[in-house]
Amino acid sequence: MKIKILLPIISDIFNEEVVIEAQQFVSPDTEITVQNLDKGTASIESVYDEMLGSPDIVAKVIQAEKDGFDGVFVDCFGDPGVEAAREMVSIPVVGGFQPAALLTTMLGGYWSVISVLPSVVPMIRNLARKLGIDGNVASIRHINTPVLELTDKKMLQDKLLEQLIIAHRDDGAEAIVLGCTGMMGLAKNLESAAAKQGIPMQVIDPTGAALGFLEMQVRNKISHSKITYAVPSEKERKV
Amino acid sequence: MKIKILLPIISDIFNEEVVIEAQQFVSPDTEITVQNLDKGTASIESVYDEMLGSPDIVAKVIQAEKDGFDGVFVDCFGDPGVEAAREMVSIPVVGGFQPAALLTTMLGGYWSVISVLPSVVPMIRNLARKLGIDGNVASIRHINTPVLELTDKKMLQDKLLEQLIIAHRDDGAEAIVLGCTGMMGLAKNLESAAAKQGIPMQVIDPTGAALGFLEMQVRNKISHSKITYAVPSEKERKV
Amino acid sequence: MKIKILLPIISDIFNEEVVIEAQQFVSPDTEITVQNLDKGTASIESVYDEMLGSPDIVAKVIQAEKDGFDGVFVDCFGDPGVEAAREMVSIPVVGGFQPAALLTTMLGGYWSVISVLPSVVPMIRNLARKLGIDGNVASIRHINTPVLELTDKKMLQDKLLEQLIIAHRDDGAEAIVLGCTGMMGLAKNLESAAAKQGIPMQVIDPTGAALGFLEMQVRNKISHSKITYAVPSEKERKV
Amino acid sequence: MKIKILLPIISDIFNEEVVIEAQQFVSPDTEITVQNLDKGTASIESVYDEMLGSPDIVAKVIQAEKDGFDGVFVDCFGDPGVEAAREMVSIPVVGGFQPAALLTTMLGGYWSVISVLPSVVPMIRNLARKLGIDGNVASIRHINTPVLELTDKKMLQDKLLEQLIIAHRDDGAEAIVLGCTGMMGLAKNLESAAAKQGIPMQVIDPTGAALGFLEMQVRNKISHSKITYAVPSEKERKV
Amino acid sequence: MKIKILLPIISDIFNEEVVIEAQQFVSPDTEITVQNLDKGTASIESVYDEMLGSPDIVAKVIQAEKDGFDGVFVDCFGDPGVEAAREMVSIPVVGGFQPAALLTTMLGGYWSVISVLPSVVPMIRNLARKLGIDGNVASIRHINTPVLELTDKKMLQDKLLEQLIIAHRDDGAEAIVLGCTGMMGLAKNLESAAAKQGIPMQVIDPTGAALGFLEMQVRNKISHSKITYAVPSEKERKV
Amino acid sequence: MKIKILLPIISDIFNEEVVIEAQQFVSPDTEITVQNLDKGTASIESVYDEMLGSPDIVAKVIQAEKDGFDGVFVDCFGDPGVEAAREMVSIPVVGGFQPAALLTTMLGGYWSVISVLPSVVPMIRNLARKLGIDGNVASIRHINTPVLELTDKKMLQDKLLEQLIIAHRDDGAEAIVLGCTGMMGLAKNLESAAAKQGIPMQVIDPTGAALGFLEMQVRNKISHSKITYAVPSEKERKV
Repeated sequence: MKIKILLPIISDIFNEEVVIEAQQFVSPDTEITVQNLDKGTASIESVYDEMLGSPDIVAKVIQAEKDGFDGVFVDCFGDPGVEAAREMVSIPVVGGFQPAALLTTMLGGYWSVISVLPSVVPMIRNLARKLGIDGNVASIRHINTPVLELTDKKMLQDKLLEQLIIAHRDDGAEAIVLGCTGMMGLAKNLESAAAKQGIPMQVIDPTGAALGFLEMQVRNKISHSKITYAVPSEKERKV
Repeated sequence: MKIKILLPIISDIFNEEVVIEAQQFVSPDTEITVQNLDKGTASIESVYDEMLGSPDIVAKVIQAEKDGFDGVFVDCFGDPGVEAAREMVSIPVVGGFQPAALLTTMLGGYWSVISVLPSVVPMIRNLARKLGIDGNVASIRHINTPVLELTDKKMLQDKLLEQLIIAHRDDGAEAIVLGCTGMMGLAKNLESAAAKQGIPMQVIDPTGAALGFLEMQVRNKISHSKITYAVPSEKERKV
Repeated sequence: MKIKILLPIISDIFNEEVVIEAQQFVSPDTEITVQNLDKGTASIESVYDEMLGSPDIVAKVIQAEKDGFDGVFVDCFGDPGVEAAREMVSIPVVGGFQPAALLTTMLGGYWSVISVLPSVVPMIRNLARKLGIDGNVASIRHINTPVLELTDKKMLQDKLLEQLIIAHRDDGAEAIVLGCTGMMGLAKNLESAAAKQGIPMQVIDPTGAALGFLEMQVRNKISHSKITYAVPSEKERKV
Repeated sequence: MKIKILLPIISDIFNEEVVIEAQQFVSPDTEITVQNLDKGTASIESVYDEMLGSPDIVAKVIQAEKDGFDGVFVDCFGDPGVEAAREMVSIPVVGGFQPAALLTTMLGGYWSVISVLPSVVPMIRNLARKLGIDGNVASIRHINTPVLELTDKKMLQDKLLEQLIIAHRDDGAEAIVLGCTGMMGLAKNLESAAAKQGIPMQVIDPTGAALGFLEMQVRNKISHSKITYAVPSEKERKV
Repeated sequence: MKIKILLPIISDIFNEEVVIEAQQFVSPDTEITVQNLDKGTASIESVYDEMLGSPDIVAKVIQAEKDGFDGVFVDCFGDPGVEAAREMVSIPVVGGFQPAALLTTMLGGYWSVISVLPSVVPMIRNLARKLGIDGNVASIRHINTPVLELTDKKMLQDKLLEQLIIAHRDDGAEAIVLGCTGMMGLAKNLESAAAKQGIPMQVIDPTGAALGFLEMQVRNKISHSKITYAVPSEKERKV
Repeated sequence: MKIKILLPIISDIFNEEVVIEAQQFVSPDTEITVQNLDKGTASIESVYDEMLGSPDIVAKVIQAEKDGFDGVFVDCFGDPGVEAAREMVSIPVVGGFQPAALLTTMLGGYWSVISVLPSVVPMIRNLARKLGIDGNVASIRHINTPVLELTDKKMLQDKLLEQLIIAHRDDGAEAIVLGCTGMMGLAKNLESAAAKQGIPMQVIDPTGAALGFLEMQVRNKISHSKITYAVPSEKERKV
């Protein structure tokens, strides 16, 4: 199957790493294509950033369906533009939050998110509430680091481990979701580091969960409900 | 005080009626100004419509703050662009849903929304979940009529009364929120019509609630939390 | 409009301060009258205290309606007698809790109360549960100080700031509600003190919120649901 | 043990029946005493009625403790005065709602209340929310009959059966709580009548549950938490 | 990868059909093996049935891990033995409920289950509550037909369509989960039949969802949390 | 009445103590009989342990009904086999969790469990969710001690007190449930020890609550709902 990964920022600096990561999670017959936005922001850390990128995200999801893609992963933990895109297309569309939240809800009954900045905590809380799984969230933590500074993998892992330990000890977390798709390639290392501290913690990478949900939907020939995401009616639209 | 009503559609056909309505709800010293969008849609009935209008909504809220307005009412029940706008300004910003939902939660413990189309039911459910008051919602009903056909006030009232009666009898509603800001000027008539049926139902008009929350915030010198709605950080943004 | 503030205690020591405070929150055309109880308690810190004061509260709300008042604020955070009063009158009646809780739910998605004594924590939890907004409450904290010792404003502010900092750091509070109407005149000072600590916290004063809800209801010509608060039937009553 | 049943109305017309009923539910060594109010109402069907009776209820519970009673049942489904009474005494105090709601939650996972009048529906909803078991309530129904007209047992049973059938068929109720302590002596007959309709419904009588909770508490030497129901502090009280 | 399907009944009558179905849902490189129980029941329609089959289910999951399987699907909607099995093995183990419930929560915000008999309704409600997604469940319906009578596919589809229509119209369902893994091969036909009635309903087959979650977990190299499902300690066990 | 206590482990080392304890909680006319399992485990600390013991638990409950017992207490906090047993018999059957959780919900609005090991925390969380009272649970704590090491009463009480103090101070617990039926004979001592620390904490012993619920059900002639716990249909069962 053909999966489009839409990395919804205006730069391609993460693209290469994303493809390498993504290919580890999919079945051999799945083909990955990465694309960025023409209009949007350098990173997404606010509702404002999500809003600015969404029109181009939706346009590119619509184009992906026309181009014959079987599904689209909007590669950001905040699920920007995903609801609007689902209204406009029939192929499966997922962001980073919903798949990770739902997979983790099965793996461990009570889990924490570790994300980037304080500003995204209310955004993630809203995503959890809308999905109706907020009762499973032990805490939403952050490492107080902007997305564009996640490139120092060593520092990143140290900060994540610090928050993982607090989430386990103080919040009762039984699994961890990495709350930014920019935290790539770290889940297994983080599990090992936690295990060395005596904590057998599963760490869920949102990219893997998102691709898993897309493959599942394509093989099940199932997509989002057109009652929940009804096709918008015809009307004058000036953009 | 100076209140800007931003009617977030690309036509001005409702403007005159909105001003007349609005003035009934505010104190004598409050000055109302109405404005429409330059870019957006003719009506808002989907997440897609909300998404298309939001960038111009936020731009105009930012401008309203610069122009010295004390608060902005984004005059649509779906609260489009409100979260992003709150990140960008310090003055109070409200949409149609939150004020009506909160006021009604005080007036009657269990209430129903009656809105326009089936497509908006999941959108309103999400708004209720995000606000954390969904346990107070008896039902989200609709009259199966597009926004642009709400102009026939007689037909509109008949359909609303029909749904009001069902909401009371079958869903246990103890108050009704009109789920579209286009349903102007009907709340009191609808109460009278319900009373004739032996139902002492309060009908909450979202415009009145929205203006009430704005006046309350301005007089209380209080606005949205800058922890919940943090100022977006500086970064490259291409729009 | 004419608003009656019913300060539901048997002393008038707070009356003067209450009027000065109240006038800051209302529109120029609103007239404030303060009244105390003839029967009741010196302060309200238990369900027992609320129970003792309620009959006189309700009697005085009934009289206020007869006297032509447009609305009544029962000036106590525990909303004593408010439900019974709403059954007996048609004019809007609010206490301190509901307006503050609902306004704050809009301003910040997750908030804490800081009140006076451990004994009121379960009372406030019950109020939040009844209103259906308990999922938005980060914590209910207290300064371990009786109502009648709130007069030392310097000490009061220090204790409130201490709890505000803990609520922010440990409970994730994004806004603060002052959990006693006796904590007058402190909200803005507390915001400034928090800002100096780097915490941009909104502090909601229940008096301002209560008066705002009353003005909103009067201008919207709307009151509590007579389905939720049905008029008590005729029967023998011996008091 | 010695149990006081406080029938919180100003008439003794139900007393004889209550004692006969009560004795069926308690162990042989339990002694029952019935008492009415000196001040209060002829029946309780509103928050206003509850408020008027509560001061005398609490006074009589305090006296019951002094008189050596082991526990007090405030014999009304609305639990009037129970919270205030618990603050003032150490012996167990229960009303009609909490014991029935908790016992039924164990017997059947999802259950309905059938009470007297529409006016008590919001009161019972509030009791369920405060107790934190509202997720188990399938519906709160009523037979539209005042308390003082419950004496026609044949009519009463027919109306209860009618609501029971609807609660089972439409609301998914798996057990029924009789929502007024005046519905005495009917539970077993109602179960038989339902069984004849092919519905194996358990019907819980609040009197039996209340006495069961009192006996359980006395034998367990346990009472309500003095953290939840703290002893009111000394202060001026004028009644 | 190698997936074991454990059909947890003591007969093999469904095996052939299960394999054919399963292969439609998995990727080309996934190998499916079906197995039944030696001890257990002919079908599972009660907690008692689940209890009787669970010891052999867990034994066979343990053996599957030893035999090198990558994951096990306990092919029953009630998830029998799944929690105990997860404690005893490291490979992914899923039943029918959790994957279908979680996938559907993403596809449509509010959904109904249609299962076999009234007896399983409380069982499914408990599964939903434990998973923390019960707020997304519009209703749990049934076709009043035992598992062993599901073989008449025409009758089955008619009954399912009848319930689907009611779930959509009366309960507000936006997607449907087939609440028994014996309802194989019907999801797409049911969607077509609903579409003919003007209802664009997605119907989720639990087998497809279960296999999708297993593949996702294997490719993500992730399994259930060993904090949630801790390895049982050594002790005397007599079976 | 005749009550069977089924201590669901394969040793009788606790039997004598259990009988002595039990007799303190029941009325004089109640006769207690203790029995162990023939097949099962030495202690119960995992879902796996519960699963292994459940078939013999249910068989022995069925036998108890035949032998004329009025009710059965499955003497373990995890309620093993209780749901299946309720399907198979008409007499009341309770485990340790449900009665303690429900009684405590009445005594104190917000309470903590203190149990044995980390492995049982998710099990108790699931029990609370299924019962629909999880909103009342402040925390689920443990003393990190296996059941078979609870015999050192001095150490046990010290560890329980330590957790009680933390539950009160950090989690806001207003009452404590002992989360293992092996923690016998300690509740009152623990209350005294807490009182010495200035904490007026009620400590609920699950054995007393369980016996109280059984006596209440027997005297009320009421048992579990046969809609919730339907009698399993006839079918082939091979065990």
